[in-house]
Amino acid sequence: MQKKILKSDILKEVIKERPSHSNKTNYGRILLICGSKPFGGAAIMATKSVVNTGAGLVTLASDPINRTAMLSTIPEAMFADYYDRKNLSNMTKKADVILIGSGLEDSDFSEELIQETFSILTANQFLVIDGTALSMIGKRHLRIPQKPTSVLTPHQGEWERMTGLKVSEQTADANFLEMQKIGADYLILKSNASEIYAQKNPDQYNQLTIGGPFQAVGGMGDTLAGIVAGFLGQFRHDPFLTIQAAAYLHSWIAKQLSKQNYIALPTRISDQIPSAMRQITLASEQNN
Amino acid sequence: MQKKILKSDILKEVIKERPSHSNKTNYGRILLICGSKPFGGAAIMATKSVVNTGAGLVTLASDPINRTAMLSTIPEAMFADYYDRKNLSNMTKKADVILIGSGLEDSDFSEELIQETFSILTANQFLVIDGTALSMIGKRHLRIPQKPTSVLTPHQGEWERMTGLKVSEQTADANFLEMQKIGADYLILKSNASEIYAQKNPDQYNQLTIGGPFQAVGGMGDTLAGIVAGFLGQFRHDPFLTIQAAAYLHSWIAKQLSKQNYIALPTRISDQIPSAMRQITLASEQNN
Amino acid sequence: MQKKILKSDILKEVIKERPSHSNKTNYGRILLICGSKPFGGAAIMATKSVVNTGAGLVTLASDPINRTAMLSTIPEAMFADYYDRKNLSNMTKKADVILIGSGLEDSDFSEELIQETFSILTANQFLVIDGTALSMIGKRHLRIPQKPTSVLTPHQGEWERMTGLKVSEQTADANFLEMQKIGADYLILKSNASEIYAQKNPDQYNQLTIGGPFQAVGGMGDTLAGIVAGFLGQFRHDPFLTIQAAAYLHSWIAKQLSKQNYIALPTRISDQIPSAMRQITLASEQNN
Amino acid sequence: MQKKILKSDILKEVIKERPSHSNKTNYGRILLICGSKPFGGAAIMATKSVVNTGAGLVTLASDPINRTAMLSTIPEAMFADYYDRKNLSNMTKKADVILIGSGLEDSDFSEELIQETFSILTANQFLVIDGTALSMIGKRHLRIPQKPTSVLTPHQGEWERMTGLKVSEQTADANFLEMQKIGADYLILKSNASEIYAQKNPDQYNQLTIGGPFQAVGGMGDTLAGIVAGFLGQFRHDPFLTIQAAAYLHSWIAKQLSKQNYIALPTRISDQIPSAMRQITLASEQNN
Repeated sequence: MQKKILKSDILKEVIKERPSHSNKTNYGRILLICGSKPFGGAAIMATKSVVNTGAGLVTLASDPINRTAMLSTIPEAMFADYYDRKNLSNMTKKADVILIGSGLEDSDFSEELIQETFSILTANQFLVIDGTALSMIGKRHLRIPQKPTSVLTPHQGEWERMTGLKVSEQTADANFLEMQKIGADYLILKSNASEIYAQKNPDQYNQLTIGGPFQAVGGMGDTLAGIVAGFLGQFRHDPFLTIQAAAYLHSWIAKQLSKQNYIALPTRISDQIPSAMRQITLASEQNN
Repeated sequence: MQKKILKSDILKEVIKERPSHSNKTNYGRILLICGSKPFGGAAIMATKSVVNTGAGLVTLASDPINRTAMLSTIPEAMFADYYDRKNLSNMTKKADVILIGSGLEDSDFSEELIQETFSILTANQFLVIDGTALSMIGKRHLRIPQKPTSVLTPHQGEWERMTGLKVSEQTADANFLEMQKIGADYLILKSNASEIYAQKNPDQYNQLTIGGPFQAVGGMGDTLAGIVAGFLGQFRHDPFLTIQAAAYLHSWIAKQLSKQNYIALPTRISDQIPSAMRQITLASEQNN
Repeated sequence: MQKKILKSDILKEVIKERPSHSNKTNYGRILLICGSKPFGGAAIMATKSVVNTGAGLVTLASDPINRTAMLSTIPEAMFADYYDRKNLSNMTKKADVILIGSGLEDSDFSEELIQETFSILTANQFLVIDGTALSMIGKRHLRIPQKPTSVLTPHQGEWERMTGLKVSEQTADANFLEMQKIGADYLILKSNASEIYAQKNPDQYNQLTIGGPFQAVGGMGDTLAGIVAGFLGQFRHDPFLTIQAAAYLHSWIAKQLSKQNYIALPTRISDQIPSAMRQITLASEQNN
Repeated sequence: MQKKILKSDILKEVIKERPSHSNKTNYGRILLICGSKPFGGAAIMATKSVVNTGAGLVTLASDPINRTAMLSTIPEAMFADYYDRKNLSNMTKKADVILIGSGLEDSDFSEELIQETFSILTANQFLVIDGTALSMIGKRHLRIPQKPTSVLTPHQGEWERMTGLKVSEQTADANFLEMQKIGADYLILKSNASEIYAQKNPDQYNQLTIGGPFQAVGGMGDTLAGIVAGFLGQFRHDPFLTIQAAAYLHSWIAKQLSKQNYIALPTRISDQIPSAMRQITLASEQNN
């Protein structure tokens, strides 16, 4: 497989000025199924970054213990109790993009949530699988649904738990092969030099070289997952390009922050999303 | 009907420097009846923007599950449990402006709240009806009360659910006719080019052309409804002008934000209200 | 009585650079007994401004329903459940300054709290009475305790409810007389031109002329009460000067904010306290 | 014992740019056991500063009443209910650094928590003991565990309660002797001129002279304890230097803030940690 280094032009290719005749329903209905009792922060950070990308309608389905903190942090999002399974099932059917797994704990209940979500999804939906949901797929032998367009966002450790591939064995060819076996459409394999694969693209994968150790803090992945979901709700033309842009934007903002900060805190990255996206469309305008 | 494009001078016409001898009771007692369990954020955003306009005394009556998030976000407002109906009824009687509907879910309980509120209101009060309350009026055949001065703030979809008029049928004449039938005093019909109607004004309506797709995110309408309610509490001379200025200010701030941001987040619009209003009075001062 | 207009030099007279050998116990143990169920925001705003003045140890005793919002907003403060009367009584005895009344509702329970607090206080303590506690003193014929140094912070309406004096009757002489009858040591009578009286000073009172209608919003008084309490914890040399400086600082910050903002939101005033106080000591340094 | 005054070069010696090939697990798993019911703010402030140093994985184990406020303030951290003792024990075993005591109340339950934590810890772990846990060690005759590397962070009053040494008796020699008796590895004795001792270093101690009375506010110590814990998770080469740098950074930021602020609020110090740390690595870069 050939490696292509991602450049900043991917941002311009994907992030376009919005058509003036549009409303929030044009920018995606995003449902996050995230955040068990001990990991509410992950769900909140993912939700915050979905909202900040400009997604149209955003709902976090989570343990109700996380409701007030989410509302306090990001009132733009709606909240659903994920124990109300009937409501969750209805919301899942209506969503354009489902992000599942950020801050879910490994439990039988989480497995039920994942299984039921997987069983409902249809061909026009996007499914982003993050965090513990990925490890659980490996450990509990869950099968990724084939109808929706699926994106996996594991870090190297989660990829190992999913596939059995040790970090040293995670070569491009091996990663691609595993993705094929699993039946996922896209893979963002997070590391110091994250790699992005598409099942439809067996000859080439992308690598992100602008990340850095200022991103090595808790919550970074949840924030990325949220950007991916938010982008898929809005920029649906070519999902492979879209997730490349999402991953690039995430590290690009982090890199900017790192000029003045030892670490790039996830919530601060999130706060910068609207202005960073605007920088891209502004640059496009000026070039025209 | 003739269309008049709203210009920025509407802001100066309405937003005046406060007389120096005044206290908070001069700037309106605003009651929001908003925010069912899943939609607390809508209630919080509406409350935040009421407070930020400078309204004198602001209370959110809501599901108690939303109390802590509201207090954390906007301690300037008071909170009431809307299940305490006797207290709610007392507060409703004392309020100058009632905003009902942002983040209310479609339920029998919501209908009871709406009906009771409608039955209490008297001639010196303003009633702003937003969100699901509008759809419910259509669906459940509720009648808008005639005693208070009423303002409806539907987006095109809600207007359709209220009136049966499809978006393509929502011409100025048809809109005006429906408003008359419903018996509302004012109508802000939100879209890419929002229109503002007054029942007393059959010859002319206003159009807002400064909005943009950077406003196409969840929570935008709740924030507008809050500005409308806050303005009616303070600028009571000519309600038609007042709601024009409220709608104009909302989009004007959003447009300013959009120069540096891909989207104008509702909570960030809200934060800018005090400085935007000050820009107006400052410009008036300098012209004198 | 002679009227003296307060000037900015009162700030320099009171706000002094801290001696380098000092610790938090030198800056006062402040206890707020504030915030019934519907008015938690008032308690939070008062607490926030106590902390922002630099008071040493700050505890809010309130309805436990307000705990999480206070912690989310101002983690520097501690929280106590005011239904735990034994603990409250212990804390009351140890406090240097007690602020009671901001956001208390008029109820028998509030009366019990007030009465018990009043009965405990001793000669070395300061007692600031704000909000509904003031109206209740009038309505329920409560007696202000004579052992602690007491400061009342009513607005004109509360002063009327306390004393029976209508706003038009609130002349300096009448105000002073009522203060004497009530047995309060100091009185800050809030209005467009707030007045400050000391029982020990029958010949003169102070007037604050820098306030403005940008302060006519809910929460303004709670923020002032917090500054008064915070200042009494730190600047104990001459309480009359101290409360003058507190009131002056409050309006001075509001006036600064009003240059760029239509209204001066209470929480934003609070945020500016540390920098405004620093401006004073900086100016003093530069003059020496 | 000889006294060495700490200089800013300690910051450069410890705070190094991160190696590019690293992930969050390289920056420490930090467990805070902090925050009883009335003192949740202390726990939140400590957690916030741990996260802001860039620690890899941060969990606050606390009274569940503090969960929502922590999540609202610092979603980057995880939360555990400290009454779930089995889970707490598992987390304790896995942590690299344990910070215990900030905002713990003096109670039998707190003693149980402290005792069990002390009994579990092993040689490769760091233990930071702060706040009431220190007073309780003295009062309840608890023994500091010898296996982990221990750091005590008392202020002079807590040190007195631990050791019986009155403030006037807290000479360097006496302090060192007591530290030896207690069996602690490191001691940060907080005062206007904090002192830092290492048991392995009987000839010399360090003194911090850049602090000031702008730090004399509640929450200051909790914030320092968090920085110490966060630094030990990342900079493990020489713990003595590491804690010196942590204490120096804390006062250095406070001093910067004090130029524009009468007091340095703990949460504002915390917010500045990432940029202050970056200033150090930036200066190092420019010198090379």
